[in-house]
Amino acid sequence: MVENMDKIFIRDLKKYSDKEVTLHGWVYSLRSIGKIWFMILRDGTGMLQCVVVKNDVDQETFQKEELLTQESSVSVTGIVRLEQRAIGGVELGVKAIEIHQIADEYPISPKEHGTAFLMDNRHLWIRSKKQHAILKVRHQVIRAARNFFDDNDFVLFDSPMLTANAAEGTTSLFNVDYYDRTAYLSQTGQLYGEAGAMSFNRVYVFGPTFRAEKSKTRRHLTEFWMLEPEIAYCDINENMEWAEKLIMHIVNHCLENCQAEFEILERDVSKLEQIKMPFPRLTYDEAAKLLNDKDIDFEYGTDFGGADETVIAEQFDSPVIIHRWPAEIKAFYMKRANDNPDLALGMDILAPEGYGEIIGGGQREDDHDILVERIKEHKLPMEPFKWYLDLRKYGSVPHSGFGLGLERTVTWICGIKHIRETIPFPRTMARLEP
Amino acid sequence: MVENMDKIFIRDLKKYSDKEVTLHGWVYSLRSIGKIWFMILRDGTGMLQCVVVKNDVDQETFQKEELLTQESSVSVTGIVRLEQRAIGGVELGVKAIEIHQIADEYPISPKEHGTAFLMDNRHLWIRSKKQHAILKVRHQVIRAARNFFDDNDFVLFDSPMLTANAAEGTTSLFNVDYYDRTAYLSQTGQLYGEAGAMSFNRVYVFGPTFRAEKSKTRRHLTEFWMLEPEIAYCDINENMEWAEKLIMHIVNHCLENCQAEFEILERDVSKLEQIKMPFPRLTYDEAAKLLNDKDIDFEYGTDFGGADETVIAEQFDSPVIIHRWPAEIKAFYMKRANDNPDLALGMDILAPEGYGEIIGGGQREDDHDILVERIKEHKLPMEPFKWYLDLRKYGSVPHSGFGLGLERTVTWICGIKHIRETIPFPRTMARLEP
Repeated sequence: MVENMDKIFIRDLKKYSDKEVTLHGWVYSLRSIGKIWFMILRDGTGMLQCVVVKNDVDQETFQKEELLTQESSVSVTGIVRLEQRAIGGVELGVKAIEIHQIADEYPISPKEHGTAFLMDNRHLWIRSKKQHAILKVRHQVIRAARNFFDDNDFVLFDSPMLTANAAEGTTSLFNVDYYDRTAYLSQTGQLYGEAGAMSFNRVYVFGPTFRAEKSKTRRHLTEFWMLEPEIAYCDINENMEWAEKLIMHIVNHCLENCQAEFEILERDVSKLEQIKMPFPRLTYDEAAKLLNDKDIDFEYGTDFGGADETVIAEQFDSPVIIHRWPAEIKAFYMKRANDNPDLALGMDILAPEGYGEIIGGGQREDDHDILVERIKEHKLPMEPFKWYLDLRKYGSVPHSGFGLGLERTVTWICGIKHIRETIPFPRTMARLEP
Repeated sequence: MVENMDKIFIRDLKKYSDKEVTLHGWVYSLRSIGKIWFMILRDGTGMLQCVVVKNDVDQETFQKEELLTQESSVSVTGIVRLEQRAIGGVELGVKAIEIHQIADEYPISPKEHGTAFLMDNRHLWIRSKKQHAILKVRHQVIRAARNFFDDNDFVLFDSPMLTANAAEGTTSLFNVDYYDRTAYLSQTGQLYGEAGAMSFNRVYVFGPTFRAEKSKTRRHLTEFWMLEPEIAYCDINENMEWAEKLIMHIVNHCLENCQAEFEILERDVSKLEQIKMPFPRLTYDEAAKLLNDKDIDFEYGTDFGGADETVIAEQFDSPVIIHRWPAEIKAFYMKRANDNPDLALGMDILAPEGYGEIIGGGQREDDHDILVERIKEHKLPMEPFKWYLDLRKYGSVPHSGFGLGLERTVTWICGIKHIRETIPFPRTMARLEP
């Protein structure tokens, strides 16, 4: 086998009609009807029906059917033929097969497996059609977001994973032995992003974040990725526009680039196609009233629960922005509304179809003395925030930002149930392997 | 102040000649010559000379000079004028100034500061011209690499940070308290990337990695980012081609997109411009001979030291690839050469100008039984590698990959001395703050 960079992939085969090609991949399935046998080959870019006809190949090649097993690795040479009935619209008339390795009996079969079994075999499960498609959509969601920021004057600004203090409370932080002291895994890059915005104007932080939550719901991972733009000279209204445009860009990019994946996932793309800007904007008060009008037992002043979020989101085709929140349920760094100090200029975005919150953010308090008061009110230690307070002493400006939970977004875009399927190797309270 | 998404940035001002604009930023410096004063404004995209003439503005505006300090935040309205002598080729004839916040006396002055002081004030230091430029180059290096992979059929495949076992030795691993057990921060995503390559063919892992090294050299961070492509059906030769093309793409992208930054950094770009493919390729034996011919005391069979690397790299204008290494100094998963089992099919790439190793990688052992033997030889536990060995049981294929150290690459591209300046908030043995 000659390796080279310019390999031909199944995805591109239509260009090679009537040509002889060699493809490298894995046996997805085998089927025989006597003097002809069929092999579905997967190569990571698509699936291809390979046809082996007894009279067209030598005996040794024809007999390879007996050797091959699911997931065996092969290089197959043959002639590309357009064939409407075959997956992808082409098939391969096989001339030769080179076997690299005969796979042991493959543990994952088309029959139903339990979640624990599939998660234990995540390193193999990612080869399955649906998992494969989800992770490809993940890549495109990330690509869309990065392109959006890069094309809108944002500078990528990587925040640290290892931090020195447990500023916002230690209960859901992971401790790390850091030489002779303790470090904590970062839950957000926001505060660092704010420092970045004062240098670069518009920045985005993108990396893993960690939460040691003792929660086993299908919406929680202990390790997940967040996209966190932070924008100088930006108020809550502009912030909502950025969030809205980002989501719209992700949706449009995926509609254009993930058609094959959506088909595999049986995603009802009409739900994505009907999303339009501007997204509906509700104040917290309006959202609370909406729930009360529907006779839902919701206590004003608390956060919305998952069921509440679903009811609110169901009223609209597009994601819903909820803004101006009771200050006491929002973080200390949120700016208060000028006309009502009980309200924080926060904004959350709920995905449609009951997928819940995918964005949380808001305008940041930019006054040094008010921020000091807030830190005291929240009974937080002052020392760890010294550097953060510096940002208000040296050229403080109105600024805003938000965090988009990547895996929640991918779950919604794919229209699937479980967030654990949206990351190659999910980490939960009970799972650290493989 | 009205916030909106379509702000005008200093970088784009030439398009607005003779037009009135409002710019939002920070005071970089102030200078007065009586009836005229000058303010250099920075807005994160560039620097602009703003000219305030006593006869052209009201008294209140003219007197704002007395209020303003370095890093105060202001919105400045005025007429854009082409002016060859000014930085960026334009200046602003000021009409009005809105002050957002008067900065306290700024701790960082143009005079020399010690490293500890600057690192303690990293959240402000990133506003300084040089640091600002370095982090912009970092963004472009990442952008170049991502585009390269995205455009060459690679799927982004995020590997976990939290891992269950200390497979390759615990001495340089960080321990994490993970509920009732211990987790370890990942040193590499390679093994996971290999699982990805068997599903997607070509993948790239890109994320932070962690090494608890007790080293204080200027080449070491405890938290740094790595780009790790992994490629199915790829041998050591194709692997070298991918690495070479990636580096070439990064260099060309930066030469095109980082001219302003290179000027600030006083980078000798001719050193980057002279880089050409194919890069020189030396076997380990040839590199050892090169050192011995220069009467350098180098012991065959050991790894090259920093000084050795510099001597080798100095012989060439382009990065140097060193391949076919003594197996005993390379990792257990490296494939041995067919013609000499004492040699591992590893390949490292040394940057020019004495910047040392920026890439390490090679062809992976794809035979299940040989890999089991290697794990035993290296006295590693078998159980944690069970899933990894599965990759050789179910459709093993020849495959290769490598890791590019992001910060080392940025250090080289920028032509600077210290790796700690290439990441927003560096983490070292002695530093976890801010």
